[in-house]
This record gives sequence, C-alpha cells and structure tokens, in this order.
Amino acid sequence: MAAPRFEPQDPGYAERVRASFARQGAMGTLGAVLVSVEPGVVVIELPWAQGLTQQHGFLHAGMVAAALDSACGYAGSSLMAADAGVLTIEYKVNLLAPAQGQRFRMVGAVVKPGRTITVSEGHAYGIDQGREKLIATMSCTLMTVLGRDGIRH
Amino acid sequence: MAAPRFEPQDPGYAERVRASFARQGAMGTLGAVLVSVEPGVVVIELPWAQGLTQQHGFLHAGMVAAALDSACGYAGSSLMAADAGVLTIEYKVNLLAPAQGQRFRMVGAVVKPGRTITVSEGHAYGIDQGREKLIATMSCTLMTVLGRDGIRH
Amino acid sequence: MAAPRFEPQDPGYAERVRASFARQGAMGTLGAVLVSVEPGVVVIELPWAQGLTQQHGFLHAGMVAAALDSACGYAGSSLMAADAGVLTIEYKVNLLAPAQGQRFRMVGAVVKPGRTITVSEGHAYGIDQGREKLIATMSCTLMTVLGRDGIRH
Amino acid sequence: MAAPRFEPQDPGYAERVRASFARQGAMGTLGAVLVSVEPGVVVIELPWAQGLTQQHGFLHAGMVAAALDSACGYAGSSLMAADAGVLTIEYKVNLLAPAQGQRFRMVGAVVKPGRTITVSEGHAYGIDQGREKLIATMSCTLMTVLGRDGIRH
Repeated sequence: MAAPRFEPQDPGYAERVRASFARQGAMGTLGAVLVSVEPGVVVIELPWAQGLTQQHGFLHAGMVAAALDSACGYAGSSLMAADAGVLTIEYKVNLLAPAQGQRFRMVGAVVKPGRTITVSEGHAYGIDQGREKLIATMSCTLMTVLGRDGIRH
Repeated sequence: MAAPRFEPQDPGYAERVRASFARQGAMGTLGAVLVSVEPGVVVIELPWAQGLTQQHGFLHAGMVAAALDSACGYAGSSLMAADAGVLTIEYKVNLLAPAQGQRFRMVGAVVKPGRTITVSEGHAYGIDQGREKLIATMSCTLMTVLGRDGIRH
Repeated sequence: MAAPRFEPQDPGYAERVRASFARQGAMGTLGAVLVSVEPGVVVIELPWAQGLTQQHGFLHAGMVAAALDSACGYAGSSLMAADAGVLTIEYKVNLLAPAQGQRFRMVGAVVKPGRTITVSEGHAYGIDQGREKLIATMSCTLMTVLGRDGIRH
Repeated sequence: MAAPRFEPQDPGYAERVRASFARQGAMGTLGAVLVSVEPGVVVIELPWAQGLTQQHGFLHAGMVAAALDSACGYAGSSLMAADAGVLTIEYKVNLLAPAQGQRFRMVGAVVKPGRTITVSEGHAYGIDQGREKLIATMSCTLMTVLGRDGIRH
C-alpha cells in the first residue's frame, strides 16, 4: 500500500498520540507498544499472550481487531487539530488467516482525511519464526469531535 | 429483534459451546461470562474494567467488538455439527454510543445458518445505573470448518 | 426487527423524501417504487428485470444493495431537518441467498439517529411465487449535511 | 496498492470472465466496459449517465458499489478453476467523495485467494476533466462454488 503523504495540522501530533495511547487501559492489557507515529500512519506491535487467545490458541480475532482499530484511530488522530478528539464510528475487519505467530504488527493508514469524517485502512501481520504474513485487513470510519467534554484527547 | 428459531443439529450444543468458551484466554481477560446458550442465540456479559478502556475511560471499541464477535461466533457454533469448528471470516461493527456503564451485555443471534456460511448479528448494551442502552451493532460472517486439525472446537 | 419509534423534526418529511426519490435517476433505472415513508422507516419495491441481473439471471448483488442503500438513506433522511441533506458514508451488505423472485422489497430502518451521524439497517426480501424470503441485510452510516450547496435535498 | 501477483489455475480465465460479464444484464444497464482482466486484477469503466444518478446528479452510491462489486468478483473469479462459480457473500463500501466526473474506473484486486473464501479489495475513481480522484473503497468476500447447477459461470 503506497499511502498518500499528509501534512499534520498539529506539530505536536506524535506526543499527543503517544500520551493518548498511554491512557488506554486496553493497550496495556494487549501488551501493545506504539512502534511509530507518522502523519497519517501509525504502527502498533504486540506479542502473543495466553490471555489474548481464542479456543485454538491463536490470537482472538477480536483482539487482533482491537489493536488494528487503535492503529487506524491514531493514524486519523495524527492528522487532526491539537484540541480534537477522535471517535470510531464503525469498522470492518476481514480475517484472512489464523492469527498465528510470536509477534503481531498492526499498521493503520489514513486513506482520506476530512474535516468531520476520516477513513483509515489497517493491515495486521503475524510474525511467525521471523516470517511475516498478512492476517487481517480493516476499513475504519472515524469522526473528529471538537469541544465535547470527556472525549477530548 | 425477533430472531428466527432454529433446531440444533447437535443435542450437546450448549456444553460444547461452554467448553470452547472456557478455552478462550481472551474471554478470561475480558472478564466475560457466558450467560446463556440457546440454539442460534448466545448472551455474554462483562463488567467494566480499567484494563479494557480507551483514553476517555469508556470501554475500548475493540473490546466491545471482541466480546460481541464471540457472542456472534458461538451463536453460529450452537447450530453446527458436534465435530465442526467455526471461523470468523469477517465482521463489521457500528459504534452507536460511547461504551459507558458498569456492565455490558452482548447478544449474538444467527440470521441465516448455512452448510458452509452462517451470518450472525450482534447487539451490545451498556448497563449504566440499571438503565440499558444499545451501544453497538455487529454483522458477522462465519465459516463451518470440518476435519481440519487444530481448529476443531 | 421491532424498530424503535422516532419523532420527525420536519412535518413535511414524507413529501420531502418523495420529491428527492423522484429526482434519483438510479431509482427509475431500477424500476423502484417508494411504497411507504414513515418516521425512520422507508420501504421500496422493485420488479425483476433483465437489466438488473448477474450472470445467472438473479438480481445483481449490487442492484439489491443500491435499492437497499436508498431505503436506508431515506429512512435516515425522514428524521432530519427540512433543510438537511443526507450523505451515505459507508454501508455493508450481507447477501444471504440468491436474489430470486418476481418482486423485491427493501426495508430501511433507523437504528440510531444523531445530529451528525445516523445509523440505519436494511432488510431485502425476494418475493417468489408469493413466498417472501430474506435475501440480504445491510448496515449503513449516514451523515447529515447542512448548508452545503449542491447536496441539499 | 501494490497488489500481489497470482498464478491463474485456468489458462482460459480471461475469456471466461469476459463471457460471464457479457451475460450480466446489470453491466449493460450501467454502461460498464471490461477494460482489462489480469490474474487477480480486473478493471471496469463506465460513463456518467442520468439513469445512474442520485438526487444531486452525482452517480448513486449503490451504482458505484455495483460496478465495484463486479470488479472485485471478477478479480476473484479470474483465479478460480474453469468450472467454478463465484458468489459474493458480503461487501462493505466506504464512499470517500461524491461520485463526480464524466467517467469512472473501478479496480478490483484479490488480497487473499482461497479454496473456499477469497477476499478482494476495490478502488473506484471519478475522472473529472481528465483529473482522477479516489471516490470509494470496497472490501469484498467471495465464495467459490463447485458443482451447483444454475450458479456456474
């Protein structure tokens, strides 16, 4: 995916995204690490853990999607104004292969930023014995929220 | 939603679903409890927990969806043969309101069972001070898998 | 589906929806008729036609979805202000059975209206020899647009 | 999108796709032309027409999606066996911008082929005064069908 390049509105976008990520209890539970934050592109990684599995020992589809949703959401957030909040309106995930591996990488990238609505795409990779495999794709719709208490980043 | 009534193929469907649920590490992490298993309808509940939050203290959309996906998947599984496995092919979730509440209820119901493909719908409710509110809807496509080692329930 | 009941903001909602429907060239091409417009619920019907088929003679999935999208969009529009426009942001359709029949009925119903974002659900039925069958379900996200020239109803 | 390259199973894939396309009444109604068929990638174009519009004179979202669904479906079909049929199980479309333009190009590309399930992605472009703009993205799940009368290509 040759993602288009975007200009951030907020020069402090990376610190803002990192601070918000740190406040997400769910990312701690996933063991997720924010690997990189660029304008419109965010990468998150997490290791396999027993507490994230489905009944066959692979990562639970919902857990893959939760991390992928965060990557997509923060990709959108990176292009928003400093005082904006971001809400996920909806997402769809296609699970292409069992989430097998020792580590997982989630890449979220903005396809179309907008004043109100931003659309991101996500790609999840399982890293098994050093070999990387696409395991899931996501499309995600985000809304910019301005001036509502309690949902500001 | 007046869900259609379906006949289970496997009289032991409820025990089978409960045993599979117990093997999902992710459900333990979510604190999720299997409230009821009927033919084509499964209900899961979980309490609010810090480890499931996004940056504003609400439940993370991905965690809501993970629990909802399990409800949808087990609803499908309840109608399958005793030796069948179930794979989630894809799902889409619409987040209608912030996941606010002390408890959350996820209802998964089969819309259309099939030999190979089953479609389920999910509804997630936040229970806040005893008042229940619809917070998310899901549509979910499942595949029946027969005779593949490692993905049998 | 026991759809919730909503109060329209615009008492002239039904005339407004009918006038907009009449301006859609695509509905004429589909041979679609607006059967009923209630607050938050719109029903559209169309007959089978050779010009709407896929390679096996059933209705093309895309044509089913196009009519269903209109039902969902007008369901949302019926609850909006008189001067608002409606844009479809995204939709997802699950095709449950081949679109077989002499006639087809599309029911769009609002699940959650909102100031900016409205979510609708759609159900498509094939009517074959008088027997009705659910052939597709849709979830659809709409945006209310105020004050932009060219996209006002 | 740097699509992966796939090997076709059926050396006659392009003729097979072209023959099936010609049998789709819906493609004639859309004025759609099959521009190219490569293994796993299909391009369809259509001109603007009054009969395809929504109420503001842009192409109806459902018509954009119908053409995009065909591009995604035939991309999948191109990698299937000579005697296989293809069914669309579900798709999701994100509408990124009004479908404005004199011509439209739909590109469908397989992301993950499979024995039973194939996942494709679609990108729709509006071509306005020679300038091309991404107007919609799709993700689409297809099923290979073998040996059922009436749904063979």
